[in-house]
Amino acid sequence: MEESGIITLTTDFGHSDPYVAMMKGVVFSINPRARIVDITHKIRTGSIEQGGWIIRDTFQFFPEGTVHIGVIDPGVGGKRRPVAVSVREHFFVGPDNGLFWPVIEGEEDPLVIHITEERYLMRKVSSTFHGRDIFAPVGAYITRGVDIFSFGKKIHDPVRAFLKEPYMKEGRLMGEVTRADNFGNLITNVPGEEIKSFTQKENFFISIGGLVLDSLNSTYCEVPRGKPLALIGSSGYLEIAFNMASAERELGGKCGPGTKVVIGAGR
Amino acid sequence: MEESGIITLTTDFGHSDPYVAMMKGVVFSINPRARIVDITHKIRTGSIEQGGWIIRDTFQFFPEGTVHIGVIDPGVGGKRRPVAVSVREHFFVGPDNGLFWPVIEGEEDPLVIHITEERYLMRKVSSTFHGRDIFAPVGAYITRGVDIFSFGKKIHDPVRAFLKEPYMKEGRLMGEVTRADNFGNLITNVPGEEIKSFTQKENFFISIGGLVLDSLNSTYCEVPRGKPLALIGSSGYLEIAFNMASAERELGGKCGPGTKVVIGAGR
Amino acid sequence: MEESGIITLTTDFGHSDPYVAMMKGVVFSINPRARIVDITHKIRTGSIEQGGWIIRDTFQFFPEGTVHIGVIDPGVGGKRRPVAVSVREHFFVGPDNGLFWPVIEGEEDPLVIHITEERYLMRKVSSTFHGRDIFAPVGAYITRGVDIFSFGKKIHDPVRAFLKEPYMKEGRLMGEVTRADNFGNLITNVPGEEIKSFTQKENFFISIGGLVLDSLNSTYCEVPRGKPLALIGSSGYLEIAFNMASAERELGGKCGPGTKVVIGAGR
Repeated sequence: MEESGIITLTTDFGHSDPYVAMMKGVVFSINPRARIVDITHKIRTGSIEQGGWIIRDTFQFFPEGTVHIGVIDPGVGGKRRPVAVSVREHFFVGPDNGLFWPVIEGEEDPLVIHITEERYLMRKVSSTFHGRDIFAPVGAYITRGVDIFSFGKKIHDPVRAFLKEPYMKEGRLMGEVTRADNFGNLITNVPGEEIKSFTQKENFFISIGGLVLDSLNSTYCEVPRGKPLALIGSSGYLEIAFNMASAERELGGKCGPGTKVVIGAGR
Repeated sequence: MEESGIITLTTDFGHSDPYVAMMKGVVFSINPRARIVDITHKIRTGSIEQGGWIIRDTFQFFPEGTVHIGVIDPGVGGKRRPVAVSVREHFFVGPDNGLFWPVIEGEEDPLVIHITEERYLMRKVSSTFHGRDIFAPVGAYITRGVDIFSFGKKIHDPVRAFLKEPYMKEGRLMGEVTRADNFGNLITNVPGEEIKSFTQKENFFISIGGLVLDSLNSTYCEVPRGKPLALIGSSGYLEIAFNMASAERELGGKCGPGTKVVIGAGR
Repeated sequence: MEESGIITLTTDFGHSDPYVAMMKGVVFSINPRARIVDITHKIRTGSIEQGGWIIRDTFQFFPEGTVHIGVIDPGVGGKRRPVAVSVREHFFVGPDNGLFWPVIEGEEDPLVIHITEERYLMRKVSSTFHGRDIFAPVGAYITRGVDIFSFGKKIHDPVRAFLKEPYMKEGRLMGEVTRADNFGNLITNVPGEEIKSFTQKENFFISIGGLVLDSLNSTYCEVPRGKPLALIGSSGYLEIAFNMASAERELGGKCGPGTKVVIGAGR
């Protein structure tokens, strides 16, 4: 796999502090020709789960060989290992705390390297900011063509994250909201293809927070302004939305990450 | 016109979701050498009007040949056409919903192409995210030198936006606030040159939200700290401000987009 | 010193307005090959002090020869001089209002140029947006190799900022909080090395807002979840934090910029 020279960043650092810029400075100090793309820096503080979803949904739109650095790292400086991962023709660099599990999961023999080789790190590694002192330089060296085996030894027990997958219960598909986006659309953990078997049956329904929908739409504007709908969103997951309005707000602010969604059909 | 290799992005996506990054990934997958600049992703949800103002005020500071992608697209997946526009030595790519009208308006024979040629789009075009599946790839192909006639046929009826222009009423110039900026400065739709005929007359005044000013300043610090003033802002429009304070706040939060401003003189 | 082709931006412009993008457009119009990195655009409105700290803490992670443009410029258009500075193998461009004092301070003969040479500025310099009309073009010309002596004459009286340094009082070290970061960590003005003499003594303590700590930790996770700690943060300053929680919030919102911190030992 050829490296693409591109590095993406996903963190919970926000935009007020200089932490993200420090990482970019480190990258450019090592590879002045790297191109850096911010995925988001507004992951909820310490939410490995949300960070994992976002990276998994986004990385595939980048060219193969892109390096994805993720820093949602509440255990920084503790025992958790720094890792470099190579799966699905992309690289991932960050803490071994489950953040990359959504992209590793299902891979037969994922390549996960425990980063230990000090000459690729900042000369003085702080105990509180490995994003800057370990992950940024390692990511930058990958874009310079350094083989990821150079950073340390392969490990076989990367930390897994508990991924809340939808499950069947009494003939119904039980899912949940993973996040509300900027438009107030409620994005669930239910992959579009898992709904297909329901939609063709009689009495198909989707139920969430007191709202019951009986069909699946394909665009927001198929229902009147201000009305609710369900569709398979642009990342392939079931999404509850309101045309020209925020589902999050319209549903009284009661629905957000964790809210149950039930898909059923028949009697 | 030579393309500049630069793509700008203006959206209402905010900074929490990965949507902007997905667009950037698509751009880099097509043209790894593109340079991408965020104009803003904080356009009010669905505000075609605000998006149009911002793009019109900003594009001209970029080199000729720059591609400006705009995604304020409440009608995505419906009947509105995706378009590529070439006017004033710049390119614009986005929905045909009036967003680019402020840059098209006044052009004698604007070149507006209805994007239909599928080989320049993502292989699978979603019905909810044309920013990623249509506008980003088309923008990227333009930076690779693809002629905009390749994307589809020229159309002659681009959707117009209603631009609230200032107007004369009983000898007074009636304008309105288009937005408050980060400093709380109230930016109006009144071009600086339209005020000149008033400023040289006796009893010149500017009236907004109960505040009456009798002169035009040229910098914020010409009045004492905390005092109000009017000036022609850096984009060429009348602006109401307070030295070292927020006009929006000082005027009691009553003034914002839509607030009337009246310019008059004489008795 | 070779220029690095990199420009950083630190402003109080926020993310809603197109001001930052206008500056980037100007940079690319002059040097299409420049690489631009945002440090932060969320400096508190007009806070020269906060901008100065952030620039001083961050610039050193960039390659030598980087140009750091800072626009916290409440006096724009008034008498304050625009300057280009070269110290510590980096360039700094912005208003002469103390913003760069934290990087200039301690230099024996800092090179500070009063920017007057009009051919390096925008053709029409507004009186309200020197970031776009003076600092962006001058920064871009530096990345093209223009010598900073070309922009004007050397001055010997750059405006100083009053830097609140920690001081000794009755055997105790008196410091203060300079900012709370995105995690609610309280970052102080006390350099790590100044604490060392205390930590080895008996009865060592750090006191802030009613909280008294008796040791210095090295990572957040050395104390139980939800418990307070003090450590030397990644920028080298004393920091008060809570493991997996926000010190700012846990201390009742009473602690923020300006809050006193006292370090002592012995009886």
